[in-house]
Amino acid sequence: MSTVIKGGTIVTADRTYESDVLVEGGRIAAIGPNLSGDTVVDAEGAFVMPGGIDPHTHLEMPFMGTTAAETWASGTYAALSGGTTMVVDFVIPARTDGGLLDALAAWEEKATRQACSDYSYHMCVTGWSQTVFDEMEQIVARGINTFKHFMAYKGALMVNDDEMFASFQRCAALGALPLVHAENGDIVAALQKKFMDAGVTGPEGHAYSRPPEVEGEATNRAIMIADAAGVPVYIVHTSSEQAHEAIRRARQKGMRVYGEPLVQHLTLDETEYFNRDWDYAARRVMSPPFRDKSHQDSLWAGLSAGSLQVVATDHCAFTTEQKRFGLKGFPAIPNGTGGLEDRMPVLWTKGVKTGRITMNEFVAVTSTNIAKILNVYPRKGAIEVGADADVVVWDPDKSKTISAATQRSIIDYNVFEGFEVTGLPRYTLSRGEIVFADGKNDAPRPGRGQFVPRKPFGAVNKALSVWKDITAPRMIERKPEYMPIGV
Amino acid sequence: MSTVIKGGTIVTADRTYESDVLVEGGRIAAIGPNLSGDTVVDAEGAFVMPGGIDPHTHLEMPFMGTTAAETWASGTYAALSGGTTMVVDFVIPARTDGGLLDALAAWEEKATRQACSDYSYHMCVTGWSQTVFDEMEQIVARGINTFKHFMAYKGALMVNDDEMFASFQRCAALGALPLVHAENGDIVAALQKKFMDAGVTGPEGHAYSRPPEVEGEATNRAIMIADAAGVPVYIVHTSSEQAHEAIRRARQKGMRVYGEPLVQHLTLDETEYFNRDWDYAARRVMSPPFRDKSHQDSLWAGLSAGSLQVVATDHCAFTTEQKRFGLKGFPAIPNGTGGLEDRMPVLWTKGVKTGRITMNEFVAVTSTNIAKILNVYPRKGAIEVGADADVVVWDPDKSKTISAATQRSIIDYNVFEGFEVTGLPRYTLSRGEIVFADGKNDAPRPGRGQFVPRKPFGAVNKALSVWKDITAPRMIERKPEYMPIGV
Amino acid sequence: MSTVIKGGTIVTADRTYESDVLVEGGRIAAIGPNLSGDTVVDAEGAFVMPGGIDPHTHLEMPFMGTTAAETWASGTYAALSGGTTMVVDFVIPARTDGGLLDALAAWEEKATRQACSDYSYHMCVTGWSQTVFDEMEQIVARGINTFKHFMAYKGALMVNDDEMFASFQRCAALGALPLVHAENGDIVAALQKKFMDAGVTGPEGHAYSRPPEVEGEATNRAIMIADAAGVPVYIVHTSSEQAHEAIRRARQKGMRVYGEPLVQHLTLDETEYFNRDWDYAARRVMSPPFRDKSHQDSLWAGLSAGSLQVVATDHCAFTTEQKRFGLKGFPAIPNGTGGLEDRMPVLWTKGVKTGRITMNEFVAVTSTNIAKILNVYPRKGAIEVGADADVVVWDPDKSKTISAATQRSIIDYNVFEGFEVTGLPRYTLSRGEIVFADGKNDAPRPGRGQFVPRKPFGAVNKALSVWKDITAPRMIERKPEYMPIGV
Amino acid sequence: MSTVIKGGTIVTADRTYESDVLVEGGRIAAIGPNLSGDTVVDAEGAFVMPGGIDPHTHLEMPFMGTTAAETWASGTYAALSGGTTMVVDFVIPARTDGGLLDALAAWEEKATRQACSDYSYHMCVTGWSQTVFDEMEQIVARGINTFKHFMAYKGALMVNDDEMFASFQRCAALGALPLVHAENGDIVAALQKKFMDAGVTGPEGHAYSRPPEVEGEATNRAIMIADAAGVPVYIVHTSSEQAHEAIRRARQKGMRVYGEPLVQHLTLDETEYFNRDWDYAARRVMSPPFRDKSHQDSLWAGLSAGSLQVVATDHCAFTTEQKRFGLKGFPAIPNGTGGLEDRMPVLWTKGVKTGRITMNEFVAVTSTNIAKILNVYPRKGAIEVGADADVVVWDPDKSKTISAATQRSIIDYNVFEGFEVTGLPRYTLSRGEIVFADGKNDAPRPGRGQFVPRKPFGAVNKALSVWKDITAPRMIERKPEYMPIGV
Ligand SMILES: [Zn+2]
Ligand SMILES: [Zn+2]
Ligand SMILES: [Zn+2]
Ligand SMILES: [Zn+2]
Ligand SMILES: [Zn+2]
Ligand SMILES: [Zn+2]
Ligand SMILES: [Zn+2]
Ligand SMILES: [Zn+2]
Repeated sequence: MSTVIKGGTIVTADRTYESDVLVEGGRIAAIGPNLSGDTVVDAEGAFVMPGGIDPHTHLEMPFMGTTAAETWASGTYAALSGGTTMVVDFVIPARTDGGLLDALAAWEEKATRQACSDYSYHMCVTGWSQTVFDEMEQIVARGINTFKHFMAYKGALMVNDDEMFASFQRCAALGALPLVHAENGDIVAALQKKFMDAGVTGPEGHAYSRPPEVEGEATNRAIMIADAAGVPVYIVHTSSEQAHEAIRRARQKGMRVYGEPLVQHLTLDETEYFNRDWDYAARRVMSPPFRDKSHQDSLWAGLSAGSLQVVATDHCAFTTEQKRFGLKGFPAIPNGTGGLEDRMPVLWTKGVKTGRITMNEFVAVTSTNIAKILNVYPRKGAIEVGADADVVVWDPDKSKTISAATQRSIIDYNVFEGFEVTGLPRYTLSRGEIVFADGKNDAPRPGRGQFVPRKPFGAVNKALSVWKDITAPRMIERKPEYMPIGV
Repeated sequence: MSTVIKGGTIVTADRTYESDVLVEGGRIAAIGPNLSGDTVVDAEGAFVMPGGIDPHTHLEMPFMGTTAAETWASGTYAALSGGTTMVVDFVIPARTDGGLLDALAAWEEKATRQACSDYSYHMCVTGWSQTVFDEMEQIVARGINTFKHFMAYKGALMVNDDEMFASFQRCAALGALPLVHAENGDIVAALQKKFMDAGVTGPEGHAYSRPPEVEGEATNRAIMIADAAGVPVYIVHTSSEQAHEAIRRARQKGMRVYGEPLVQHLTLDETEYFNRDWDYAARRVMSPPFRDKSHQDSLWAGLSAGSLQVVATDHCAFTTEQKRFGLKGFPAIPNGTGGLEDRMPVLWTKGVKTGRITMNEFVAVTSTNIAKILNVYPRKGAIEVGADADVVVWDPDKSKTISAATQRSIIDYNVFEGFEVTGLPRYTLSRGEIVFADGKNDAPRPGRGQFVPRKPFGAVNKALSVWKDITAPRMIERKPEYMPIGV
Repeated sequence: MSTVIKGGTIVTADRTYESDVLVEGGRIAAIGPNLSGDTVVDAEGAFVMPGGIDPHTHLEMPFMGTTAAETWASGTYAALSGGTTMVVDFVIPARTDGGLLDALAAWEEKATRQACSDYSYHMCVTGWSQTVFDEMEQIVARGINTFKHFMAYKGALMVNDDEMFASFQRCAALGALPLVHAENGDIVAALQKKFMDAGVTGPEGHAYSRPPEVEGEATNRAIMIADAAGVPVYIVHTSSEQAHEAIRRARQKGMRVYGEPLVQHLTLDETEYFNRDWDYAARRVMSPPFRDKSHQDSLWAGLSAGSLQVVATDHCAFTTEQKRFGLKGFPAIPNGTGGLEDRMPVLWTKGVKTGRITMNEFVAVTSTNIAKILNVYPRKGAIEVGADADVVVWDPDKSKTISAATQRSIIDYNVFEGFEVTGLPRYTLSRGEIVFADGKNDAPRPGRGQFVPRKPFGAVNKALSVWKDITAPRMIERKPEYMPIGV
Repeated sequence: MSTVIKGGTIVTADRTYESDVLVEGGRIAAIGPNLSGDTVVDAEGAFVMPGGIDPHTHLEMPFMGTTAAETWASGTYAALSGGTTMVVDFVIPARTDGGLLDALAAWEEKATRQACSDYSYHMCVTGWSQTVFDEMEQIVARGINTFKHFMAYKGALMVNDDEMFASFQRCAALGALPLVHAENGDIVAALQKKFMDAGVTGPEGHAYSRPPEVEGEATNRAIMIADAAGVPVYIVHTSSEQAHEAIRRARQKGMRVYGEPLVQHLTLDETEYFNRDWDYAARRVMSPPFRDKSHQDSLWAGLSAGSLQVVATDHCAFTTEQKRFGLKGFPAIPNGTGGLEDRMPVLWTKGVKTGRITMNEFVAVTSTNIAKILNVYPRKGAIEVGADADVVVWDPDKSKTISAATQRSIIDYNVFEGFEVTGLPRYTLSRGEIVFADGKNDAPRPGRGQFVPRKPFGAVNKALSVWKDITAPRMIERKPEYMPIGV
C-alpha cells in the first residue's frame, strides 16, 4: 500500500521545488518527478510541507482546580485539521518531590487511547529532591529529553532559583534540554494581590499583574542560570520585547538559548482584555497575557532573524464555563487559550502572505526547527526519504473565516474568531495516512497517534559541554611557601 | 573665629573658578575674591573642592563570624586624610524580623563616640515582617532615607523577591530610596559548593563563584522589582558590564536607577586572585569580586556618560589574620577590602589625570551626586554659601606611593599597595575645622563627627510617584449586561 | 538701582529652596532670606529659575529661497514672554568656501539692533577650504566656540564626510564643539525624488522622505567622525529612537556626545502631516519631521537618564504664505516651525506636571546644561551670585491655551495651537531688567539684547584631548635587521 | 561510471547520520546504507560533508598597481586541497561608468581555462551611470545575482551613498543581492594621511587608519541604504563587534542583513601588525585589518547565534615581493591575505573542536548557508540526491602544522603559519570526481572547473519586496476644499 503525493511544490525549511512524494510503510520512500503509488493525493497548485509540530500543549491538563477541557482526542484532531501532525504535551507531576514516573503513567493513560496525531512529552520539574534527581534519568531513558520549569504559579508549580539550577545541572549531565515558563512568580503574586485589593477584579487585572518587565526579568534569570549550569535553555511562550531582548543578548554572547513565541502573541494584543464583555476578555486570559502591539514587531523580527526559532500555541483550552471560575477575581480564571487548529493558517496569513517570513521560514518555525531542537529531526519535521510521512498538502488559495461555530476543537469559543485566513490544509497525512481531507468526510481516529521518543545529547548540548569544559575556571596551585605559615 | 581658604581654584561639579572661601560657624559664609579671616588656609596652586562623601562603608561591621577591624575612629580618620569628609555606613539588624531601631542604637553607640568625620546611615532590611514595616517609618523619622537589601549572602542577610518587593513598596510610600547588593545568592551558594567540591578552595574560587552574569542578573531583577513598586533604586558596587548594562537599559526606558562603581573595580582586576601568595589573594576577597579588565572600560564610561553616578569604596576592612579564617575554603574568607583613604587620590590619578573624567565630574562622583541622591545636598557636597564647610584643599602636584606602611587605616595591608598617585589633600576641613593637614602634626579626634540626618521624598521620588500614578493601569468598568448571567 | 525677587522658591538644576534674590548692576548680587531692594518682584507662590536658553534658533534665516519670517525683534521678544532669556542662532555663510566673517557681520547687522534678549551664535561650516580653516580661528576669537555642520540639504548646506572630518579636527585644535544636523542628505534627496515621482507631492511626502533610520544613520556617522577627530560632538534636533540609540551607544563607550531633542518632537507626532488640510500639514514641515509616537518615550527617557541633555526649538518660522511655496511639491516647502515662546510652558506641562522629569531636570535641560555645554555657565544658566540676572519667575498655577491669536510671535499659526499649558512666566528678567510681566503693559525693546561671547576649551574638550593623546596608537619601531634587505 | 563514498558519517547543516553516498554523472544519485559503485571512496571514521564554498575570493585580481599573485589555477587547487569545492570571485570593471560585461569577459578569460574547482562570480559596481544600470540586467541574465559595492578605496573603487542607493534599488528590481565592503573611505583616507604625516609608515599604520568604528559606521550606513531601497544586504568581511552590532540591530528590526566573518578575523589579531619584522607584518595587511582579540568572541557568537551566517577568506594573495611596494608607506602595501586552503581546517580546529560551533553549524557557515544566500542551493551546499557531488570526506583525526613550505597556494608565506590543525580532508570530490586525495599523487587539473550560474529573486528578496510594498507610505488624498485657495 503506497501513497503518492502528486503535482505539488515541496516547501521545506531549506528550499522550494516541484516534486512528487512517495510514501510507503508510513515513511517517505521517494521524492522525485513522476512517482506513482496506490493512492494518489492531489497536490496540484499546493505546497507539500512537513506537518506542523506544536511543541507546547496542555491537553486535559489538571490546572487551577479544573481540567483543560480540550481532550487528547479533540485536541489532536483539531491539530491535524490545521496541518499539525505532532504535539508535545507537558507532563505535570502531582507532587513536587518526585512522582515523575507516576505522572508519565497518568499522561500515557490519557494520550495512548485518544491521540489522533503523534505526540511526545516534556516532563515538568516542579520541585527538587533526590527522587526527582533520580527519576530524571529514567524519564530520559523513556524518550523524554526536555524538562520544563515554572518560574511563576507561586505556591503551585513554581520552582526557586536553586531548584532550577540543580535541575539544569542535572539536565546538562543527562544531555537534556531545560524549558522555562519565565515570569517572576513572586512579583506576579504580589501584583495580583495589589490589583485585587484595589478592586481590579476583572480580566484586565490579569494583564496588569503580569507586565512585560516581569517576563523579561525571569527570562534573563533563567538564561543566567542555564549559563552557570552549562546547558542550553528554551524559553516557552516568549511574548514580549523584554524577554526577546534577554534572549538576543544571551545569544550574542554565544549562549545557547531558544525562544518560542506563540501565534497568539504574534497576532493578538492586550486590548482584548479591555473588552466590555467579561466572557470575551476572560476567554483570552493566559500567561503571559497578550501584550501591547509594539511587542509584535519584535517577535516577528525574531522569527526572521533567527533569535526566536519556534511558533507554538500553549494550547490549554478551557470552556467559558470554566473561565467563569474567576468571576470574583481574575486570579481564579483558568489560564489558557486554544490555537492548535489555527496556528498554521494564522501564521501563514499574517506572516507568509505579508512577506514578513518566507515560506521556508514558515516551515522552519512551525516544524523543522522544533524537530531539531527537540532532537527528533529528521524523523519529524522533514520531507526527506526515510522521514515519517507527516505531511501537509497546503492550499495557498483556500480561505476561511475562523469561527468557533465550525471548529473541530470542542471549546465554545475561539480567540481568533473572525480572522480571515488564506492558506489551509487540503490534506494532512500522519505517517502516510490521510487523517484530514478538506471538505471530505473525515473523522478523528483516537488511539492511532503514537508516542515519539527523543534522544538526549543533541549536537548543541554536546558542543556546549565541550566549550564549558575548555573555558572552566582553573584552580590556582599554590606552593606551601606561599601559604600562610602554620597551615 | 573665621577661616579663609585663600588663593585656590574652586572646583565643583558644575564649574571651575578662582575664589577664596570664608568659613564661619562651620559653614561657608562667603565665596569671593580677597576674603579674609582669622585663620588662613593656603590654597595657592590647589583646588578647593567639596569634601568627598563615601556612601558605602562598613566600619566595625559584624560579619561572617568576626567584626571588620577598621574602627569608626580609624576609618573616619583615614577618610579625612584622603579627602573624604563624610561616610554613610550600613546599619545591620541582628534579627531578620525587625530590630531596626535596636540596630540603629548599636551603631550609634559605636559611631557617636568615635567618628572623626560626619556620617550618616543606611538601614538594612534583611527580612520582612510587620515589625520591619512599622520600624521603617521610625527609621525615616530618624533621618535615614535609604534602605539596603542583600540579594546575596544566602542564609544570612539575603532577602527574597517578595520581601524585596514589599520593602520597596514601603520605601515608595515613605519617600525613601532602596539600595541593593545585587548578586543572585542562590547561584552564588551553589557555585561555592561546586567549586569547593571540586577542590578549588583558594581565593580564586571566590571570584569563580560570583561571575559577572550573576551580578547582572540580580541587578536586572532588582530594577524590575523597583519599577513594579514605583520607586527609584540604587545598585551598590556595580562592578561589571552586565550590571551596568541592566542599569543603562532601565534608564533608557525612563526608569530611575543609580549605579555605584567602587574605586577598586575601576582599577583592579581579577588577576589579583590568581596571585601565588594566598594572603595576597585573600586580602582582595570582596563581593562582587574584581573582574577581568574589560569591565573597567564600561565602568569608566558610565561615570562620564552619567549612567553610573557615584564612586564608593564598600570599605569593610579585615586584617590578614581575619582573612585566614578562610584558609580551608574561600567561602569563609571575610568579604571586604579597604579604600576609604585612597578613593580620591586613586580616582584622581586614574581618572582626571588621564582625561577619562573632568575635574568637575570627579567632584560629582565623589561628592555632589552622592549628596543629591541621598538628599543631603547642598548641606553636603557643595561649595556654596550656607553649606557645611566640608572642604578639601587638593594639591594636584603632590605625589605618593600608596603603602600599608604609611597609611592611617589600621589594616596591615592595602589593596592599592604600590600605586603611584598624584593629587592629594593638602588640607581637609570638616565643618570648617582643619582635621587633616598634610605633613603637619595631625591626629584623629574621635567623637567630633556628627550624624547627618537626611529627609525623605527627594525630587526624583516625588516625580516618579506622579508618573506612576498617571500611567497606572485602569480598571475596566463593565456594565451588568456584559457580565455572565447570574453573577 | 536694585531689584529684589521676593518670596519665591528658587529652582536650579541642583536643588529647590526658598530664598529671595537681589539683583544689582544686571547681576545677581545676593541670594538669601529677607533681602530688600529698590524694586520688588513678587515671587510668592512662584518658582524662581534661570531664564531659559534656546540653543537652536534661525531668526530671519535666508533659506530655501526665502527668509524665515520671524525677526530678531519678534523672535527674541516671543522668547522672553515664554521665559527664555537667551537664544543661540546659526550664522550661515553665503559661500561654501569661506565667508565666515562676512556672514557673522551680516548676522550682527540684524541681531544687534533688534535683539530683545541676549544672544550668541553658532557658526555654520558649509564647505571646506583653507579660508574656512583660517577663519574658524578668528570666529573662535570672536567668542563663538561652536561650529555647525549639515549632513543634509544636498546641493546647498551639506558637507561630505571628509569635509566634516577636517572641520572636526580643526574644532579639536581650537577647543571648539562641532554641532551636526544629522540626516543622510543623499538618501533624503533620492527619497524626495522617489516620492515626488510617485505623485506623493503633499507634506506627508516630507515625512516619508526623511525616515528615522536616515537620521539614525547620520547621527551614528557624525559620532564616528568626531571620535576619529578626537572632539566632542553635539547632535542637534535628535528626534528619533534611532538617533538617540546611536548617541547612547557612543556614550556607553566613553565618547563625548550630546543630544538635543526639540520640544516639538517630544510632544507632536507624524499624524500632523496626515491632516486633510494642506496648510495645516505644511505648517508642520520641518527637518527632521515629527515621528510616530513611539519615539517620544525614547526622548523623554533620554532627558531623565541624561543621555539627552538639552531641549531646544529649532525655531525657524515661516508664514503660511511662505509654506505655500511648496504647493507643487513638498521639497519646496520651507523647512521650519516655531516654538520659542512655548518651549518652556509646553515642556513644563508635559514633563514636570506628569512627573517625567523633575523641576530641577527642567531647569537643567532648558537652561543650565545648555550653558555648560556652550561654556557660558555660570554667567548664564545659573541662579548664583555673580551670574547675569536672567531669571524667570514661574507661576506653576497659571494656565492658558496656546493660540496663534494671542501669541507674540509674528507667525500666523502655532504648531501647539490648542495645547493647554499650566506653568507660565509671571515675570522674565534679563540682566535684571523686567522684560516681561504677565498681564502688564509690556513691549519689546529691540536692541537691548547683548551678544554673549563664549570661550573655547571647555572642560570636556580638554579632558578628551588628554585621553585621546594617552590612547593614541603608537608607531612600532623596527630595527634595520627586521626591514626587508636593501631598504 | 559511478562512485560510492562508503562507511562515513554524513554531516549536513541539519543533521549527522551514517550513510553511504552514491555518485553518478557528477551528481548524488543515492544516499543510503550498503550502496555500491565502480569506485569506492573510503569514508570509514570520516565525516562526509558538502564541499566548502568560499563566497569571497580575488584570484589574479588587478589591485593597487599590481595583480594578486594567486592564480585561478593555484587558488582553486589550494581550495580543493582544503575541502573547498567552489569559489565565488569578484569581477571588477576597469571603468566606473560601465564595462560590466567587458569585465566579465576578462574574468571568464582567466577563470575558464584555469579553474580546478567550480566557481561563480559577484559583479562589482564601482560607479553609477545609465550604462551600469542597463548592464546590471544583462549580468543577472548571465547568472550573477550579486553586486558588490566598495565604501572604501577612495578614488578607486569607492561609491558614494547616492550611487549605492541607486544600485541597491536596481538590485531590488532585478531580484539581486547587494554586497558591501563596509569601511568609511573618506575617513580611512584621512587617517592614512594623518598617520603617514606623523611618520607612522609601517604596517601598523594600516591597522591604525582603519579602526573598528570606521567599519561599524559604514556597515550601519549600508544597512540603512538597503532598508530604504527595500533589498536585503550582505556585508562582506565583518571583522568587528561594531559591524556585527549594526547587523544585529538591523536584524532585530526584521531587516534582512547577512554578515560574513573571515576565518582570519576569527583567529588572528592586531598584534600581528606589531611584529618587529616588517615583512611579517606587511604580509598580514588586509582590509579590514585584524582586530584586537575582544572582537573574536563577538564573531564566534554571531556564528552560533545566526546573526552572522557565513565564513569566507577574502583570499587575495600577494607575494612578499608585492607587499614591499609599501615599504615607504603602508597605504601602498597591496591589501590582502590568503586562506582558501586553510579556511576549513582552521575553522574546524578553532570552532568545532572547542565546541564553539557544532559540526552542523560548521557545514552551514562554510557551505550550506552560502549556497542558500547566493541562491544556488541545493545544487551546491547539500548532500542531497540530485545535488552536485561536491563532497569532502573529512578526517577528524588527521593533523598537520600549517606552513607555507608545504602549501599548495603559490604564495611564499601563510598567515596561519604554525597553526596546528586537526581535521583535514581525506578526499575532495568535485562533481563526483576525486580532485584531491590526501597523501596520494594528486595534481591540479586547470580548466575542469565550471561556472555556476545563479538565479535572481531568492525567497528572501521576494518576501521583503512584499513586506515593503504592504508597509509603503501612502499618499494622503486631500480634497480641493482643504487645499489653499487658488491652487
Ligand atoms: Zn506557561
Ligand atoms: Zn504552557
Ligand atoms: Zn555588598
Ligand atoms: Zn557593602
Ligand atoms: Zn537642522
Ligand atoms: Zn536648525
Ligand atoms: Zn573588501
Ligand atoms: Zn574582498
